[in-house]
Amino acid sequence: MRLRKKPWAENEIATNVAFVENPQEIKGKWQEFFENSNPIHVEIGCGKGQFLTQMSKLNPNINYIGVERESKVIVSALKKSRLSEVGDNIAFISADVADMEEIFAPEEISRLYINFCDPWHRRKKWAKRRLTHKNFLNIYERLFGNNGGEIFMKTDNKILFEFSLNEISDKGWRLHNISLDLHNSDFQGNVMTEYETKFSEMGMPIYRLEAYYNRNFEK
Amino acid sequence: MRLRKKPWAENEIATNVAFVENPQEIKGKWQEFFENSNPIHVEIGCGKGQFLTQMSKLNPNINYIGVERESKVIVSALKKSRLSEVGDNIAFISADVADMEEIFAPEEISRLYINFCDPWHRRKKWAKRRLTHKNFLNIYERLFGNNGGEIFMKTDNKILFEFSLNEISDKGWRLHNISLDLHNSDFQGNVMTEYETKFSEMGMPIYRLEAYYNRNFEK
Repeated sequence: MRLRKKPWAENEIATNVAFVENPQEIKGKWQEFFENSNPIHVEIGCGKGQFLTQMSKLNPNINYIGVERESKVIVSALKKSRLSEVGDNIAFISADVADMEEIFAPEEISRLYINFCDPWHRRKKWAKRRLTHKNFLNIYERLFGNNGGEIFMKTDNKILFEFSLNEISDKGWRLHNISLDLHNSDFQGNVMTEYETKFSEMGMPIYRLEAYYNRNFEK
Repeated sequence: MRLRKKPWAENEIATNVAFVENPQEIKGKWQEFFENSNPIHVEIGCGKGQFLTQMSKLNPNINYIGVERESKVIVSALKKSRLSEVGDNIAFISADVADMEEIFAPEEISRLYINFCDPWHRRKKWAKRRLTHKNFLNIYERLFGNNGGEIFMKTDNKILFEFSLNEISDKGWRLHNISLDLHNSDFQGNVMTEYETKFSEMGMPIYRLEAYYNRNFEK
């Protein structure tokens, strides 16, 4: 991992105990890693870590793992979480969502957060890159396995949100707590991401959904 | 039915063969009424009939029934359909949605259209009046019966639409073809209602959903 423009970055990577350098080696052993049997919730594309850092402090009985492809971004998340004095219930890994099955065994994860992911909305053919495309939902289904699982998603992008509602419905998952304007809704206990703070200050509506997968749902 | 301000109205009611004065008497016999075994689609709150009149002309192999509580409105629908020279595949009844089970037997209807119904959005306690409240969904489930059925809904009201997505999901129905901006979507063959024409000319996004009920869906 080369991080030329942030001289402190390599040191952060090397010394921050929340960073897991070779997560493939922990596949199937994440509860051992956390030294407890608490549920494991993963944020895909955790960015600079504001959301996950807050969540880990609010919910000490949940283990959180931030997955972020951009190494220069994950360094900021590591620094933020260290300065926020998080507990042992948080870890960060640098990985692509397509590689999740090399990192997690079936039934290890019970919830995925997808917050303000790239909407890939400018060209139709890009739709398959969206994290709620049915190809990704297939990956999540295999990760959730026999226990089932859930996705909590937020976005400011109407096209992505509409697409996600349809992809999830078409897979036979169950939608719940859909918000078309989260910040003007009754929803309690929302933890904001960096993007969410910015977009909502600009007056843009924030969309949110919860989606439940259970392999017993009839297709 | 008294219609003081429209002197032509009582004559329209009396002479228009599409008007069914005592629909309770046809319960369980709607296919006999239409003299065929084509599917029966009902629009709840058909207003002045623009949508249903067009649909009946576009789809001669579907039987359409417009249900409208307001007698002064249904008279306009009758007149419009007569002037549009509709075929035998359309009927109008004056009834409240709460009385649908007195008018239709289980399995007689296979699709319900709910277009721009009153959103009842100003007070929370009014939510139970919305045509997608779970109490109404229970009625529709009994009407669809063993064969299942579907609702096609359109609205300009974001609060009602969000509410409907959640009520329908919570009942375990399946959502499909959700549009958060119908007139800027790929959806083909949309037939506009009177309200839809007006609202879309004002630049307001139109929301649309399809919801499928099958009693075999696991709750």
